[in-house]
Amino acid sequence: MKIPKPTVKRLAIYYRCLERLVDKGIDNISSRQLAEMLHIKDTQVRKDLSYFGNFGRRGFGYKTRVLLDEIRKILGIHKRWNVIIVGAGNIGKAIARFKQIEKHNFKITGIFDVDRKKIGKRINSDLIVMSVDEMENFIEKTGSELAVIATPAEAAQLIADRLKNSGIKGIICFAPVTLNTDIPVEYVDITIFFKTLVHSVISLSHNI
Amino acid sequence: MKIPKPTVKRLAIYYRCLERLVDKGIDNISSRQLAEMLHIKDTQVRKDLSYFGNFGRRGFGYKTRVLLDEIRKILGIHKRWNVIIVGAGNIGKAIARFKQIEKHNFKITGIFDVDRKKIGKRINSDLIVMSVDEMENFIEKTGSELAVIATPAEAAQLIADRLKNSGIKGIICFAPVTLNTDIPVEYVDITIFFKTLVHSVISLSHNI
Repeated sequence: MKIPKPTVKRLAIYYRCLERLVDKGIDNISSRQLAEMLHIKDTQVRKDLSYFGNFGRRGFGYKTRVLLDEIRKILGIHKRWNVIIVGAGNIGKAIARFKQIEKHNFKITGIFDVDRKKIGKRINSDLIVMSVDEMENFIEKTGSELAVIATPAEAAQLIADRLKNSGIKGIICFAPVTLNTDIPVEYVDITIFFKTLVHSVISLSHNI
Repeated sequence: MKIPKPTVKRLAIYYRCLERLVDKGIDNISSRQLAEMLHIKDTQVRKDLSYFGNFGRRGFGYKTRVLLDEIRKILGIHKRWNVIIVGAGNIGKAIARFKQIEKHNFKITGIFDVDRKKIGKRINSDLIVMSVDEMENFIEKTGSELAVIATPAEAAQLIADRLKNSGIKGIICFAPVTLNTDIPVEYVDITIFFKTLVHSVISLSHNI
């Protein structure tokens, strides 16, 4: 079943919210409550969730724990994913040290760079920067399936090609480029978020 | 004029591509070429750009430099924006040190934290971590209009309220929460990108 990407993103947001509710010991939630917390329409919540079967009971809402487990399976985060990072600059290091990722079942197995000054540097208790020359062997040895590209724009395409050829199945791309590849890519160009924000700010001030 | 957010995001991506073309000395580009580089449909490119008037000439394409200037104005990045960062953890520091942002006319003016161990630490040649107690005064003094929230989830809403009350007009939120505020927010929850990616990878493997 092909689920549209906006729906997938909302599922991940419902998931985040449900985790917090379960932590707080809240067992039940209605689509209206969920919608209010996330500032979306409750018809949208119901539509998104009904996609996958009937999780809720009319008038009784959803069982938070059941819904959490279901979304976990739908998203594919019920299993652990091994992730490598290419590029040990500011962004690559921040991702390597970002504890939230591990909490969500993603394990950063290795970090690579071309810069001799960075290779051998310790990032945290588990990770030392390796040379990109070792990347292909490492991917095979560790069975890493996902990769983060945090290289400069110019290097990203070549790295993406090498990653795909080594068996990587999906890429998170922080480099400001559009990659030419047939494996799934999620783009996180931070400057695009800034530009989109500025446009919203300006449009709003024009309307006043 | 209210432009849909997906269009705004694509404009920012056209902009990124046009910058590279101008750097390479390429003066003209057709919508088809632009579409091919970005793996989208050329009808989409033409539709997006025709939104703002007639930049191209049928059969002659777009003048890269003219289009770049126009998109810059539409997005609102022809002026400089002062930005503060709240939270000097891994993500906050990475954003503070991320040179791409400055290159795009966003100036990081200050970075704040509540942690006494972090306050006073140097982030780069321009920035030293300040106490959040100084945040409101600093925003006023520097005329900062945008803010990055890179705090833990629990702190984000209170910070967002304080930012709005101090005159901040837009927020980039890295904290994994949905904020309750009426100023524009762009959300960058890195774990959501990982989850969305995993879903694409899994769907693809099911289809094979």
